Amino acid sequence: MVIVLAPGADEAVIEEIKQIVGEAGGEAFISKGVSRTIIGVVGNAGVLEALEARDLTQHAGVHEVLRVTTPYKLVSKENHAQTSTVMVGDVPIGPATVTLIAGPCAVETPEQTLASAKLAVTAGATILRGGAYKPRTSPYAFQGLGVAGLKILQEVGQEVGMPIVTEVIDAADVDVVAQHADMLQIGTRNMQNFSLLRAAGAAGKPVLLKRGLTSTYDEWFMAAEYIAQRGNLNIVLCERGIRTFEPSVRNTLDVSAVPMVHGLTHLPVIVDPSHAAGRRDLVLPLARAGLGAGADGLIVDVHSSPEQALCDGPQALFGDSLTELSQVMATFPALLGRAQPQR
Amino acid sequence: MVIVLAPGADEAVIEEIKQIVGEAGGEAFISKGVSRTIIGVVGNAGVLEALEARDLTQHAGVHEVLRVTTPYKLVSKENHAQTSTVMVGDVPIGPATVTLIAGPCAVETPEQTLASAKLAVTAGATILRGGAYKPRTSPYAFQGLGVAGLKILQEVGQEVGMPIVTEVIDAADVDVVAQHADMLQIGTRNMQNFSLLRAAGAAGKPVLLKRGLTSTYDEWFMAAEYIAQRGNLNIVLCERGIRTFEPSVRNTLDVSAVPMVHGLTHLPVIVDPSHAAGRRDLVLPLARAGLGAGADGLIVDVHSSPEQALCDGPQALFGDSLTELSQVMATFPALLGRAQPQR
Amino acid sequence: MVIVLAPGADEAVIEEIKQIVGEAGGEAFISKGVSRTIIGVVGNAGVLEALEARDLTQHAGVHEVLRVTTPYKLVSKENHAQTSTVMVGDVPIGPATVTLIAGPCAVETPEQTLASAKLAVTAGATILRGGAYKPRTSPYAFQGLGVAGLKILQEVGQEVGMPIVTEVIDAADVDVVAQHADMLQIGTRNMQNFSLLRAAGAAGKPVLLKRGLTSTYDEWFMAAEYIAQRGNLNIVLCERGIRTFEPSVRNTLDVSAVPMVHGLTHLPVIVDPSHAAGRRDLVLPLARAGLGAGADGLIVDVHSSPEQALCDGPQALFGDSLTELSQVMATFPALLGRAQPQR
Amino acid sequence: MVIVLAPGADEAVIEEIKQIVGEAGGEAFISKGVSRTIIGVVGNAGVLEALEARDLTQHAGVHEVLRVTTPYKLVSKENHAQTSTVMVGDVPIGPATVTLIAGPCAVETPEQTLASAKLAVTAGATILRGGAYKPRTSPYAFQGLGVAGLKILQEVGQEVGMPIVTEVIDAADVDVVAQHADMLQIGTRNMQNFSLLRAAGAAGKPVLLKRGLTSTYDEWFMAAEYIAQRGNLNIVLCERGIRTFEPSVRNTLDVSAVPMVHGLTHLPVIVDPSHAAGRRDLVLPLARAGLGAGADGLIVDVHSSPEQALCDGPQALFGDSLTELSQVMATFPALLGRAQPQR
Repeated sequence: MVIVLAPGADEAVIEEIKQIVGEAGGEAFISKGVSRTIIGVVGNAGVLEALEARDLTQHAGVHEVLRVTTPYKLVSKENHAQTSTVMVGDVPIGPATVTLIAGPCAVETPEQTLASAKLAVTAGATILRGGAYKPRTSPYAFQGLGVAGLKILQEVGQEVGMPIVTEVIDAADVDVVAQHADMLQIGTRNMQNFSLLRAAGAAGKPVLLKRGLTSTYDEWFMAAEYIAQRGNLNIVLCERGIRTFEPSVRNTLDVSAVPMVHGLTHLPVIVDPSHAAGRRDLVLPLARAGLGAGADGLIVDVHSSPEQALCDGPQALFGDSLTELSQVMATFPALLGRAQPQR
Repeated sequence: MVIVLAPGADEAVIEEIKQIVGEAGGEAFISKGVSRTIIGVVGNAGVLEALEARDLTQHAGVHEVLRVTTPYKLVSKENHAQTSTVMVGDVPIGPATVTLIAGPCAVETPEQTLASAKLAVTAGATILRGGAYKPRTSPYAFQGLGVAGLKILQEVGQEVGMPIVTEVIDAADVDVVAQHADMLQIGTRNMQNFSLLRAAGAAGKPVLLKRGLTSTYDEWFMAAEYIAQRGNLNIVLCERGIRTFEPSVRNTLDVSAVPMVHGLTHLPVIVDPSHAAGRRDLVLPLARAGLGAGADGLIVDVHSSPEQALCDGPQALFGDSLTELSQVMATFPALLGRAQPQR
Repeated sequence: MVIVLAPGADEAVIEEIKQIVGEAGGEAFISKGVSRTIIGVVGNAGVLEALEARDLTQHAGVHEVLRVTTPYKLVSKENHAQTSTVMVGDVPIGPATVTLIAGPCAVETPEQTLASAKLAVTAGATILRGGAYKPRTSPYAFQGLGVAGLKILQEVGQEVGMPIVTEVIDAADVDVVAQHADMLQIGTRNMQNFSLLRAAGAAGKPVLLKRGLTSTYDEWFMAAEYIAQRGNLNIVLCERGIRTFEPSVRNTLDVSAVPMVHGLTHLPVIVDPSHAAGRRDLVLPLARAGLGAGADGLIVDVHSSPEQALCDGPQALFGDSLTELSQVMATFPALLGRAQPQR
Repeated sequence: MVIVLAPGADEAVIEEIKQIVGEAGGEAFISKGVSRTIIGVVGNAGVLEALEARDLTQHAGVHEVLRVTTPYKLVSKENHAQTSTVMVGDVPIGPATVTLIAGPCAVETPEQTLASAKLAVTAGATILRGGAYKPRTSPYAFQGLGVAGLKILQEVGQEVGMPIVTEVIDAADVDVVAQHADMLQIGTRNMQNFSLLRAAGAAGKPVLLKRGLTSTYDEWFMAAEYIAQRGNLNIVLCERGIRTFEPSVRNTLDVSAVPMVHGLTHLPVIVDPSHAAGRRDLVLPLARAGLGAGADGLIVDVHSSPEQALCDGPQALFGDSLTELSQVMATFPALLGRAQPQR
């Protein structure tokens, strides 16, 4: 159940609704938008029936009560016709711009992170990425530096003047990651880790939500709804390739996802050509394809010494391929009627 | 890196190895088997190089040091040629038996849970299943009763004399679930929630690990390896259907998984025809197919009033279909040279 | 459009309807069942409108005129509640029996074919399979012996006293194959080769229609409808494994297809564990799984010297694995309330 | 086996080789390229062994004899480093240009075909497409006008001054289609109809080969090899979307296929955004994505009255969407360093 408050409804109304929901055995989650406040109600069938019997549409300050029949509400375009612009630090991701996020797959050392960040700047990036917690298929693979990695990334971000985004893989780590990062990333394997989605939604930082490896669009948008329901609409979706039968590429970038996200939700969407391809020579063609499809940005792996990378070195851009990326960033946005955010 | 200790190596040896690993910057995880102890080492490339330089094969009490080149070690058949038998309470799951786990998809009330448990007994079940924490695609769907549900399930299990298995969806809940349940279930969507796998591995209870919706066998076995690496080899795998292009069934039961698990690992494997099918009329044919393929057991949804179920009612067995299941349990195990565990 | 004639409608009625359809610019295809005759009409929208205007329901001898709104009609269970029994020579495939079809993947020499046929007999087979035209992914692979192979297969079939089934891969070859074989097989890659389906439908021999590698059930049943529409309802469906993401098996046997075929069509369905698995050690578990799911038969590769086979040797049964298959054939049918056809 | 002749080898050499191959029981297929002639040999293992024993490398005029160990040879980039340019009538498809093929999905009437062709011209097309033989999943759907449709398409092509491409679905129709069309199209469902591939390869017209719905790149290239082996290297590949789990789009355009084709073969590749999407609003984003990925052209459905189309009306472009396509054609090629062919 979603309760839409009237414009101008104040805190008192919110508290009254929370109390009514609580008495019925449910939980209320508050999403304050620019023009109005939405209260998501979670509870079993009995809770919802009890609340229906109360007929909250008669309550002062309530504009509308929606039974949730379509699968997602808060992130749907139905309630919010224009694509949102999400601010990461002072950098926008939204319909007016093409934003480049770049950096090393994993934070390994301060030196490697700084060198990679400088490469990212050269390519036209305005947000720095880097992994401190790495979800790895094998327990024997490098799992990331943890808090030490967060600190390195934060310091390097400050040095080069870019906000940072980094992955969080456990609800218990959300607070510490949110203290250091400007944006939380939820990865492919955790797209339906509902505890993590709820914790990220409550942390007060924008969230980059990657699509699951074989998720449908609806499942992806429902995962975003979990975040939104905790009061956080600052969500950017990321298409990063889906699993298909083709063995010669790691994953298959689904460019249709870009116009579909724009048609069904109000969330911005970026593409990750590096993880889709898993190999350097495909990154540029896929980056151009994603922008051609209308993506609001790109997230790309760069590395100063890819042959020494602890994680995903074969897909990291460097040298000539970075120069080519900077040329794409210099020409495609204008052709598509967009700007590149300035540093 | 996996360090295999010599038969009879004592605690002192384990402590020495843990100290060496710690000094090198790694972490050591201990798995005590019946005949020998295995120590899994986690760390980055530098850690492993440092340990290699120490040449632990020369250390007293060390039998062998394995570089992990094949993706999984502890669960592999290479180190353990016979399929293991995992005890859930006093009920075995393994190569000599066909074990039926049954119960309601979700614990709703004490009455519904007890009625369903009695149906499970009638069908031949010796382990009771039921969900207290439900991972749901939609934040607006019933999320389970939590601790209250665990208590109901535990009481009903004691009343009907069956050990219980229930799902845990957050690492933070593992301890409380392990206090109430005889076996922890890790669900499809969490198969690569590595924090949860580690916590479940450390909790000291057997684990039922469902296969991810589109996971390969290797990815599934690597998830089991995360659990094993925390010292817990009491793992039962569960094939529960994979996502395919067919829209008329919820998922497609992959019966090939059964002989492949038996060929590549020493873990027992059961099949879940209820969640694979998503519809009652397919449950019996799929149950027979799973047993024909050589499964060590079945996990099936039953419900006393499926039309009122808060979760997955359309697939729950009741009435005639339960009688048919009891006939399958009475005839198939003998044909396949197995027994049905006694209550 | 499908025109159902009244019971007892004679040839004169059929001729009248054919003439009317022809005048309207359409084509009429006649299917004579035991109790009634069905005429399928093919034509564009204009043809169908013209025929609708004629209101054939008023024509003497016409029972019913169906606009085709559901995707398949002639093979649907709606019009034919019991599963049909298809006779291949004098061997039935249907709900009362479990029929084993066995033989070499490819006909190579008279000696190899005869030796393999004798193995097939030992295993309990009552129909002989063997390929004379092989569809191969590579133009450089062995393409089969063609007509020479057909002759070998026919002679061997007569010698061992079994009817034969063999694949046809080109509409232009249907006549010659139908002269030699008792049943035509249409393979996975040709499931939507509509010219071939039509030609096979018109050839007057029963057809074994394998499911496409990633086809949905509806697409499969529509392919059967193409055959049925040419007047041939003697169709047996064959589930032979679908493409999934698992690299360690060639294909994934979809056992759900068996009860779904039985629920939606009146056609018998068999399973092919050999081509699904692509490896010998999985053939028996998959055969048992298919029978457990309710299949009306099996089709299995056997070879007297699999290491020398020109095609798919690694999956052909021989020696102990054949003995095990004969035991399955001796025990499973009875457990499932079916008989094994006698030779 | 592939026999590569020395530069300047004349017809006599070719005849000698053909005779030797024939004596060994094999078949020889001749591919004459600009700089050299390649002879593909088909036969079973015995044939190949016999030919090896002859050691053709010693034969005058033979440059090299290749055992086919990689799966495709004639279409591989290994033997032909530059992407080929295929001429369709006088219109090039290749690395220097971005060629637009457009027209109605199906030829219905001369008026509809001409009106659609004029729309195609407006959008910047230089080759006209249109279907006379339609492969349809349902036998009850419109199957195309056949030869009458070919004649309409040919006349309209002459009237608007564009070469034409049209689908052929049966080997028996290849000759008549080749008499009327400038390029033969082989559709998705027939990608592994090997008889059709061989017939199209022998027909002397360029071939547009669409990728199968769930084919791997290797399978696609092997299908092209069947055509090439009949002496026809004028092959253009077409990526038209693959089947994925997403229900809201018909297929998923795999843009990675474009750089992969260019990296592994010397064949040009175009994309079909219309059939991939199945809905008009995605055609432009996917067209831009395909060009961004580096496609050598596009094939697009247009229709003068899409609401009346007998086939795939919902995806046909008209009105504003055509204007937008003409703008894409006016701007993207230049950005990517290519020209648009002139009419």
